[in-house]
Amino acid sequence: MPARAALPSTYRVVDTRSMEQLSVGEASYSIGRAARADVSEIVTLLRDDSLGARRELDDLRPYEAAFEAIDRDPNHLLVVVKDDRYVVVGTMQLTLLPGLSRGATTRLQIEAVRIAATARGTGLGAALFEWAHDYGRRHGADLAQLTTDKSRSDAHRFYGQLGYKATHKGMKRPLNEG
Amino acid sequence: MPARAALPSTYRVVDTRSMEQLSVGEASYSIGRAARADVSEIVTLLRDDSLGARRELDDLRPYEAAFEAIDRDPNHLLVVVKDDRYVVVGTMQLTLLPGLSRGATTRLQIEAVRIAATARGTGLGAALFEWAHDYGRRHGADLAQLTTDKSRSDAHRFYGQLGYKATHKGMKRPLNEG
Repeated sequence: MPARAALPSTYRVVDTRSMEQLSVGEASYSIGRAARADVSEIVTLLRDDSLGARRELDDLRPYEAAFEAIDRDPNHLLVVVKDDRYVVVGTMQLTLLPGLSRGATTRLQIEAVRIAATARGTGLGAALFEWAHDYGRRHGADLAQLTTDKSRSDAHRFYGQLGYKATHKGMKRPLNEG
Repeated sequence: MPARAALPSTYRVVDTRSMEQLSVGEASYSIGRAARADVSEIVTLLRDDSLGARRELDDLRPYEAAFEAIDRDPNHLLVVVKDDRYVVVGTMQLTLLPGLSRGATTRLQIEAVRIAATARGTGLGAALFEWAHDYGRRHGADLAQLTTDKSRSDAHRFYGQLGYKATHKGMKRPLNEG
């Protein structure tokens, strides 16, 4: 048997303690809690989006501060998906929301879902949601919920295929104007 | 001046450390973080609702466990409103949701809003939301968000008057069936 090839010099040591493997067809990804070093790539994903393009900032510092706030509360999980070259190709934010209503149901709140353009249509999005639903169940959640902009018709179809029903209106209000 | 009347024997000592006064016209309420002793009355409010009537349980224990989970995370706030006889007449659950998207916007997530039938139409609901929005601002939130069942047309009108826009679809999916 040939000796194992030396790691190429571009090999990045990543903290894999909390990363799990996610297989989608022939492809293999790693998935888990984002690290601070992932923030820049995650913001690039958020920006590469019809609505995100005009919403996101150039300055990374507000995102790094938000990362710290997310990361310090165990009820929040900023999820990152990386391909086999450790490039970020997916993200979502999960929050466990215990509550009294609906028979004391714990909700899994899903925000800021993005899949890299290069990975769309591969089944990665569905696999990411399957992982997220399993994460919710493992943490006692009975109901997953998200809102999606009315203009995102592809997303509505995708969520419908995953078993989501548009039973609610999603209403938002800025707090610092008017 | 006459001596101050002795407190009636039904006077209940309540923990007012975190309660604030909320004035609505001539009426005065106290508002703040719910205590474990309020859970039973809050569940009664949740049950006294067109959708809640068939969703809520008789057994209080799951609600008490959920209360503990909410209460131990400073990002969650179970809000209770009491009238001048210390009867619970309103509730909502607030969650501070830091996030990367929208320029690292912190969201104020609002769940499980109820006003007692006896207090509807008095302006208490609007005052409760004004208090909640102020709470959000004080804690760095830029955006308030909620979802409301498509059948609650009175609620849609109410939220519209408060400045909420139905820009999103609210989608939900049970995690423990199918």
